[in-house]
Amino acid sequence: MRLALGVSYRGQSYFGWQSQPDGNTVQDKLEAALSSFADRPVTTLCAGRTDSGVHALNQVVHIDVEVQRESFSWVRGTNRFLPPDIAVQWCVPVADDFHARNSARGRRYAYLVLESPVRPAIEAGSAGWSFRPLNHEAMREAAGVLIGEHDFSAFRSSECQAASPVKVLRTIAIERRGAYWRFDFEASAFLHHMVRNIMGCLIAVGNGTRDVPWLEAVLEARDRSRAAPTFAPDGLYFLGPHYDARHAIPERTPAMDWLP
Amino acid sequence: MRLALGVSYRGQSYFGWQSQPDGNTVQDKLEAALSSFADRPVTTLCAGRTDSGVHALNQVVHIDVEVQRESFSWVRGTNRFLPPDIAVQWCVPVADDFHARNSARGRRYAYLVLESPVRPAIEAGSAGWSFRPLNHEAMREAAGVLIGEHDFSAFRSSECQAASPVKVLRTIAIERRGAYWRFDFEASAFLHHMVRNIMGCLIAVGNGTRDVPWLEAVLEARDRSRAAPTFAPDGLYFLGPHYDARHAIPERTPAMDWLP
Repeated sequence: MRLALGVSYRGQSYFGWQSQPDGNTVQDKLEAALSSFADRPVTTLCAGRTDSGVHALNQVVHIDVEVQRESFSWVRGTNRFLPPDIAVQWCVPVADDFHARNSARGRRYAYLVLESPVRPAIEAGSAGWSFRPLNHEAMREAAGVLIGEHDFSAFRSSECQAASPVKVLRTIAIERRGAYWRFDFEASAFLHHMVRNIMGCLIAVGNGTRDVPWLEAVLEARDRSRAAPTFAPDGLYFLGPHYDARHAIPERTPAMDWLP
Repeated sequence: MRLALGVSYRGQSYFGWQSQPDGNTVQDKLEAALSSFADRPVTTLCAGRTDSGVHALNQVVHIDVEVQRESFSWVRGTNRFLPPDIAVQWCVPVADDFHARNSARGRRYAYLVLESPVRPAIEAGSAGWSFRPLNHEAMREAAGVLIGEHDFSAFRSSECQAASPVKVLRTIAIERRGAYWRFDFEASAFLHHMVRNIMGCLIAVGNGTRDVPWLEAVLEARDRSRAAPTFAPDGLYFLGPHYDARHAIPERTPAMDWLP
C-alpha cells in the first residue's frame, strides 16, 4: 500500500534533502528512521528537494509498504528514530496513483529576512539578513514583473535538471512585521535555486542597488550571469506542495503558526 | 568609562551565561570577542544569568573600558569576533553608578510551548512541548495565585544564591497563537530556576494532572519537593531587564518581533 507523510525539518545541520553517500541528508535520516520502524528497507520520494540549510514545514513524501500499521503509529514510531530537528507530522493512506512529486499542482516557499544594521543571532539560520533598508513599493513592483508564465532561465542554477525552464509563478506576497520581512512564493514548480535567485534580485531592487527595468531585462535575457547573486539559504522555508482535493493531503502543520 | 551593551543569543550551544573553565558559555564568548576588539582584557557583568539552553533577546551587560570608540564600533567590531548565534545589538555610554544587575528594576522572560501530539522539529530548542491539550482558564487561574509578593522557596533550585526567596511577581500573561502558547513573566527578580519551576506547575495545571488548590498548597508549603518537575529550558527567552528611565537603556531589539 502507498502512504503519504508530511515531514518538517530544520535544514541547518543537513546537506539538503537528497540522499548522499555520507548520509547526512534529511532523506537519509528519514529513510533510516522509517526502515527502523518498519523493520525493512523503506525508500521515499518527495514533493520538492530542498538545498542545504533550507527548512521545510510540510514536505510531502510517499512510500510503498507492506506493513499494516495505524497511521499515527507511523508518525510516533518513526519520530522515535529521528533527530530532534526532523519530525513526521502526519501520515495518510493514498491511492496508488498518488505521487508526491508528479501529482503536485503547486508549491509554496517563504523567505524571512531581518532588516537591521546588526546581523541575526537568536534567529541565525532561521532568517536571512539585509543590513540596508528595503523599499516595499520597489520590491512589490519588481515582483509584479515576475508573476505569470515565463521562461525563468535567468533564475536557474546550472545544475538544474528540470525538463523545461518555463514555469508559472502565481504569487509573490511581501509583508513586513517589525524588523522582519516575509516573502511568500507560489508556483506550479520551481527550478533549482529559482527562489534563492529571485530573492537575490528582489533584495537588490529593495535596497536600491538595482531597479525594476534592470529586472525586466534580466528576465528577458534568460541569462543567469546577469541576475543578482543567489541569496543565502538562511530563512528559506519550503511550506509544502498542494494536490487535488481528492487526495486529501493535509496542507498545514502546527509549525506554520510559528513563522512571523 | 562605563558602557552598557545589549546582547542577544541562542542558548542551545552553550552551557548557559556564566563563565566556566572550559569556556563554552556565552560570557566566555562575549568577553573573548570584546577583548579581541579592545585589544586588552574586558570583563562583563550581566543583568540576569541564563541557564544552559535558555535564549536571550536583550541581555544587558556593563563593561569598564579606557578605549575610546564610537558606540556602533563596539557593536560591529565585537560582532566580528562572535559566533553566528550571539550578537551585540547596541552599546550606550552610562554613568559610573549604572550597574547591569543592581540597577535593574525588573526582568522579563517569555516561554513558548508547542501543544501538539507531535514534538517540535523546525522549532527544536526554540519551543517547549506539551503533547496534552492545555486549559487556558485553569492556567490563568493558577497564574493568579502566584502574582504579588511571595516567598518563592517552592520554586527555587537548591543551587540558588539569592539573599532572599521573597520576590514580587508582577505579571504572568498567557496567550495562544495557533498551536503555540506564549507565557510572559515579569518580576522584580527571579530566583534560580524560578521561571522553569513555575512553568512546570502551570503546565501540570493546564494539562489537568494538577489543580489550582494544589498550586496554592505548593506555594504555601515553600517546599521545592512538592512542586512539579522543572520545565525544560527549550523555549525559554530572557527578554531583558528594565531600568530607571534616566539610564536610557534600550529595552527592545529587532528579535522581539521574531517571537510568535
